[in-house]
Amino acid sequence: MTTGKPITCKAAVCWAAGEPLKIEEVEVAPPKAHEVRIHILYTGICHTDEYTRSGKDSEGVFPVILGHEGGGVVESVGEGVVGVKPGDHVIPLYTAECKECKFCKSGKTNLCGKVRATQGQGLMPDKSSRFTAKGQSIYHFMGTSTFSQYTVVADVSVAVVTPKAPLEKICLLGCGITTGWGAVVKQPGIKGSTVAVFGCGCIGLSVIQSSSLVGASRIIAVDTNPNKKEWATKFGATDFINPKELPEGTRIQDHLVEITDGGLDYTFDCTGQVQVMRAALEACHKGWGISTIIGVAAAGQEISTRPFQLVTGRVWRGTAFGGVKGRTELPGLVEDYLKGSVKVDEYITHQVKFEEINAGFEAMHSGDCIRAVVDMS
Amino acid sequence: MTTGKPITCKAAVCWAAGEPLKIEEVEVAPPKAHEVRIHILYTGICHTDEYTRSGKDSEGVFPVILGHEGGGVVESVGEGVVGVKPGDHVIPLYTAECKECKFCKSGKTNLCGKVRATQGQGLMPDKSSRFTAKGQSIYHFMGTSTFSQYTVVADVSVAVVTPKAPLEKICLLGCGITTGWGAVVKQPGIKGSTVAVFGCGCIGLSVIQSSSLVGASRIIAVDTNPNKKEWATKFGATDFINPKELPEGTRIQDHLVEITDGGLDYTFDCTGQVQVMRAALEACHKGWGISTIIGVAAAGQEISTRPFQLVTGRVWRGTAFGGVKGRTELPGLVEDYLKGSVKVDEYITHQVKFEEINAGFEAMHSGDCIRAVVDMS
Repeated sequence: MTTGKPITCKAAVCWAAGEPLKIEEVEVAPPKAHEVRIHILYTGICHTDEYTRSGKDSEGVFPVILGHEGGGVVESVGEGVVGVKPGDHVIPLYTAECKECKFCKSGKTNLCGKVRATQGQGLMPDKSSRFTAKGQSIYHFMGTSTFSQYTVVADVSVAVVTPKAPLEKICLLGCGITTGWGAVVKQPGIKGSTVAVFGCGCIGLSVIQSSSLVGASRIIAVDTNPNKKEWATKFGATDFINPKELPEGTRIQDHLVEITDGGLDYTFDCTGQVQVMRAALEACHKGWGISTIIGVAAAGQEISTRPFQLVTGRVWRGTAFGGVKGRTELPGLVEDYLKGSVKVDEYITHQVKFEEINAGFEAMHSGDCIRAVVDMS
Repeated sequence: MTTGKPITCKAAVCWAAGEPLKIEEVEVAPPKAHEVRIHILYTGICHTDEYTRSGKDSEGVFPVILGHEGGGVVESVGEGVVGVKPGDHVIPLYTAECKECKFCKSGKTNLCGKVRATQGQGLMPDKSSRFTAKGQSIYHFMGTSTFSQYTVVADVSVAVVTPKAPLEKICLLGCGITTGWGAVVKQPGIKGSTVAVFGCGCIGLSVIQSSSLVGASRIIAVDTNPNKKEWATKFGATDFINPKELPEGTRIQDHLVEITDGGLDYTFDCTGQVQVMRAALEACHKGWGISTIIGVAAAGQEISTRPFQLVTGRVWRGTAFGGVKGRTELPGLVEDYLKGSVKVDEYITHQVKFEEINAGFEAMHSGDCIRAVVDMS
């Protein structure tokens, strides 16, 4: 039995901004009250991990164990934990759901406030870390740190899912796919409407898939990588546009407004680039177009547009984790996957062993990678 | 009978950008098919008139007859006009409502597309003008040109109202008051919510009044003019903040977030200043705050913010004429005024004779003017 004792295992530590990850022996302290220790079996690699690793996130803290798209089995729980027990199959949540705070009770948002402050500092709610490597305390990341064979998370940051679903697939529901899905299904009105999706990575493809699922009438995928046309089509896009192939001087938003008789009903930025966010807004139809920002921009960057764009009826909004309440909604999404109504396997282009995790990061930059899944064993 | 003949009357002509208005004898051609000639009895002066007069509007055309907040009586109608007849009391609409175009039929917006293109060019739908002065064709303005004793407008740009209501008051429903009212009553959820209103001119006061009417729990008025405190309070504000009186270096949005335990549920920009628009958005509560831009910014100016503001659940939107469909909704609003549930008289601080219309413009800059009404007789 490991319960109540520190566990020594392997973790990929990022010692400093810009450095590759290093597999180290780490000691993972037992969970304290209202904490859960999870044996992570698989994890996806997301652009946000790379964003922090690279040092572009001005709030990144080091040394740190990154990773926030994991799947695992609960090893032990701390005092006072209810609703999750050893042996449960779980997906750690970077967007917690306490069901008690002002945000959770509002019925208007998934942005739980319970552990937000300490999570942002790379620490557990008691303001300490559960990770030690080479005698040094290591920071947590996004409340999940799934690049460790064992991790400790707050009990409000755990979604229990059916053990029938393969963790090597559904780990991806911890971020990208779920984010795109929520951004679409939680927005009423997309059925029968026109949609443009900027960026055909994991999130963008999920937005395309989900728009198709809810019955959008036209789904225009936009990406500067021509190889993404096949991907976008496979996931349900009706059109694909490469902005680089437009005539010299033609802006993508003007082109989209022209070919859609006034603009799109809904647009989504899945790139994290502020100029694309602007284009996505301005491609919306006057009077009712709604543009949703999903991508995360680099630190210090700002979005801008002419206020006229909003005064004439466009709406600019955003979403984090697709507006999904993880503990409440992820179990159902996993069931949807098992029933075949939500694709997951199709996003996995690369599978790497834990020792090769840096190769997974490199693949992400190659343009032919949607998601790499790391086998943590 | 004047029907079918040109009418010679007086109009305030702005001959060139930046010049004061000049009262001239103008000839007003009879209405063509689907047009209505109106005897304007009263008109308000709005900041948008001054904006165009000053030359700041890069799309302004001259010489022009400004004015868009009028009240009058129909003198004659052109062929094919239904629903409005000579003798009807009317309010000209700068936001038309044809009930037939894509926009009108959408059920999502008040931005009718029927006469928009020609209206933007300062012309009637057949691309010509009905005004002549000193042998020269004079441009129309916003499809209304209420600074003329007689004006011609499209039939889709006319709201028929009860003759029981005094035109010297309800002319103001042609723009400012209605805009503020619509911006509030068309947004579900304000009942019981917290609201901040930036700018306590006519529109801002109307937002305050309407928020109070629908039952907002707290209404914070923000204005740099300390004299507006009394006004804001009179119209229903629960708090008044002068940003100039905050401690050095304290931003208004940070102050508002602090005193409201996380920010406002709804904010409104009624200033037209892009920095204020940003403050209004950033004063919104994480997770659900909605900020509405009502003010018109100077040409070329842009709004900006960090995308994080939207990703964490704030919504940035705007409205023109408060989202009000004039022909359908103004008659009811006039009835509300007669019943006493919507204030109008209280906005009128200045009354000027037609010959003194430039004094009305000057009053607008004085800071103690909410609305000046011009007696066109």
